[in-house]
Amino acid sequence: MTTPWKHRYAQRMERMGSSAIRELLKLTERPGLISFAGGLPAPELFPVKQFDEASRRVLAEHGSKALQYSTTEGYLPLRQYIVDKMAGYGIHASVENILITSGSQQGLDIIGKILINPGDKILTEKPTYLGALQAWNAYQADYVTVPTDDEGLCLDSLEDALCAGPKFMYVLPNFHNPGGFTLARERREALVRIADHYGCPIIEDDPYGELRFEGEHIPPLVVLDAQKLNGENHHFERGNVIYMSTFSKTLAPGLRLAWVVAPRGVIQRCVMAKQGMDLHTSSINQMIAYEVVKDGFLKEHVRLIRRVYRERRDVMLAAMERHFPPGVSWTRPQGGLFLWVRLPEGMDAAKVLERAIAQNVAFVPGVVFHPHGDGRNTMRLNFSNAQPEQIELGIARIGVALAQEMEQELAFA
Amino acid sequence: MTTPWKHRYAQRMERMGSSAIRELLKLTERPGLISFAGGLPAPELFPVKQFDEASRRVLAEHGSKALQYSTTEGYLPLRQYIVDKMAGYGIHASVENILITSGSQQGLDIIGKILINPGDKILTEKPTYLGALQAWNAYQADYVTVPTDDEGLCLDSLEDALCAGPKFMYVLPNFHNPGGFTLARERREALVRIADHYGCPIIEDDPYGELRFEGEHIPPLVVLDAQKLNGENHHFERGNVIYMSTFSKTLAPGLRLAWVVAPRGVIQRCVMAKQGMDLHTSSINQMIAYEVVKDGFLKEHVRLIRRVYRERRDVMLAAMERHFPPGVSWTRPQGGLFLWVRLPEGMDAAKVLERAIAQNVAFVPGVVFHPHGDGRNTMRLNFSNAQPEQIELGIARIGVALAQEMEQELAFA
Repeated sequence: MTTPWKHRYAQRMERMGSSAIRELLKLTERPGLISFAGGLPAPELFPVKQFDEASRRVLAEHGSKALQYSTTEGYLPLRQYIVDKMAGYGIHASVENILITSGSQQGLDIIGKILINPGDKILTEKPTYLGALQAWNAYQADYVTVPTDDEGLCLDSLEDALCAGPKFMYVLPNFHNPGGFTLARERREALVRIADHYGCPIIEDDPYGELRFEGEHIPPLVVLDAQKLNGENHHFERGNVIYMSTFSKTLAPGLRLAWVVAPRGVIQRCVMAKQGMDLHTSSINQMIAYEVVKDGFLKEHVRLIRRVYRERRDVMLAAMERHFPPGVSWTRPQGGLFLWVRLPEGMDAAKVLERAIAQNVAFVPGVVFHPHGDGRNTMRLNFSNAQPEQIELGIARIGVALAQEMEQELAFA
Repeated sequence: MTTPWKHRYAQRMERMGSSAIRELLKLTERPGLISFAGGLPAPELFPVKQFDEASRRVLAEHGSKALQYSTTEGYLPLRQYIVDKMAGYGIHASVENILITSGSQQGLDIIGKILINPGDKILTEKPTYLGALQAWNAYQADYVTVPTDDEGLCLDSLEDALCAGPKFMYVLPNFHNPGGFTLARERREALVRIADHYGCPIIEDDPYGELRFEGEHIPPLVVLDAQKLNGENHHFERGNVIYMSTFSKTLAPGLRLAWVVAPRGVIQRCVMAKQGMDLHTSSINQMIAYEVVKDGFLKEHVRLIRRVYRERRDVMLAAMERHFPPGVSWTRPQGGLFLWVRLPEGMDAAKVLERAIAQNVAFVPGVVFHPHGDGRNTMRLNFSNAQPEQIELGIARIGVALAQEMEQELAFA
């Protein structure tokens, strides 16, 4: 069937095509399949009762306001709540530094819109978050990548990458998606210093920071950056870091509620961009979320999430020890939702995925998290969205798929 | 205070700057001021009780699903509802032709993303919807404009504009924002034919179509386009029109729920773009909206909205007859939310606004709806968001501001 639309699409669409792996991942929605592929929170932990009570209160007390248009910046009491929350992290911002976004994905899109010219280079970790690549491919960004190890981004490769003149660098310091690793404190301090020296701004994406199961909290880059300015925290406005976080992993992703913290001038640009993107984030969702969190509910709730996810991580790690063949290694995340697996050099995780799907289990091949298509021998496993018995069973099956694929490789070697 | 960000913004931001009028309009948020400036629905008509019942049911029966991530395309039952709703308009689409967006503003942003290359010309009516310009300025669009009269876009200037080779044309056929006029049936038929002849696709934005107070329904462009293909409606997939509508004016804007109807291939591109923009529209809002509308609630509710808005329009028209000085003319909309006022040539509506604000009443100067900054002698008045007595009072005050400004002009003449 002919269509008059084919030749009309903008050039940027060439960077946003569908992929073979995306087609493969569609199969993971098959009922009965155990999926470690998504990045979904455990739905059984969603505070449904609190949402029910909160929405009744919001509709009874502020029904008209909740259903009406509202400001692009976001619901003021929620922004004030975030200011207080950020202060607990050591980020001394005011409401003018906070923009509510329709999920962190919109934060990434806004950042692309205000900062990226076509052909601009963006410095990312390798691997990096797929959603950032999806957002920024639309702005025709190019990428320079820096390798990572179990302590995050490798500093010895950083300066080479900075010499390529990237527009900004994008870093996920805590419980990396997909890598599972956490950027070590000394590396954070050095990173902030080097970024400043090269005049390269940092986008710090921190969706999982509150979900630490073990080990000590490490200050975010935005805090280290502000301290660097004069040893105190008062120079946020002159800072070099845009910080992002979200309610998706602590409260519920179905609301699409996240936030950006940045110097005022940056927020003003973000607001202009967002106005043309969706006018504002759902009024009622912002008001309900505020009603749920305002009296400290999250503090207790996050403890529950941590406990459950930690157990699932432990079950997954133990099962991997038992079922994965020699030559396969993996990260041991101190928090978050994801594990990262490295297969022997030359093995193709996409082929393992085909075998795994035949056994009703799925994961994401790591290649999709690599801007230049390398990392074919890596894979990402999510441990937050499956019950412990399912994790045990699924990992055993992936173990079989791995063994089969290795045997095949040996047969052809 | 120096900031390291100033020289970092993308070139496209130059097209998205703040304006003097935007600053002026900030004053319209002053308490006690009568505002005809916004485009807000009457909040006293929001079906708060229905939302309360619907959200209780959704949370009780599908709480986990409502709070979880969901698909980019949108909630399937809501898309099916929209298919049925569209069929009532004569648009024979299937769910694959429907994308749920986070408000119509996001629909405009998506269209910009998939279609506009920097420097592309977009054909718009003059005046046109400000939100479309805000969305597309970010893609560095240029504009060719076609004048309008009380029957909408003037066909005799259309072909000249099409010779400039626009990427697409953007048309609001019903109860135009800001113009208030409705595109006549013969013009719609000719427009569809001419657009096809020139190979120029049409973006049909129809947020107010259901809010007709009087006169006969006129088929949307998308229907006339499909009929043109073979006299029937079955060739939607080969059609030349992307149709957009929204729940913001019939249900509630605070939800941020709208939709795009287009050939499958176009929807697939829209989905790819939206995935990088906000992953998906709020799951819970889609499910609650479906719960409110699924048994036919809107049909009755829209009758109520029509009755109330019609009365307000009538009050405004009658007050204008009484209070506006000679030489001022205006449209008489058959539906929607807006009236359009033309002042004598040479008068500046921004100056009238300054005087109006001093008297605690506001409107939007028409210049902001003109891509090339003309139309300084025009103004937009919203009649949906104020009570009849407020409308009477506000129009009398604008009448005084108009008389003052005319006197001043004469004094300097």
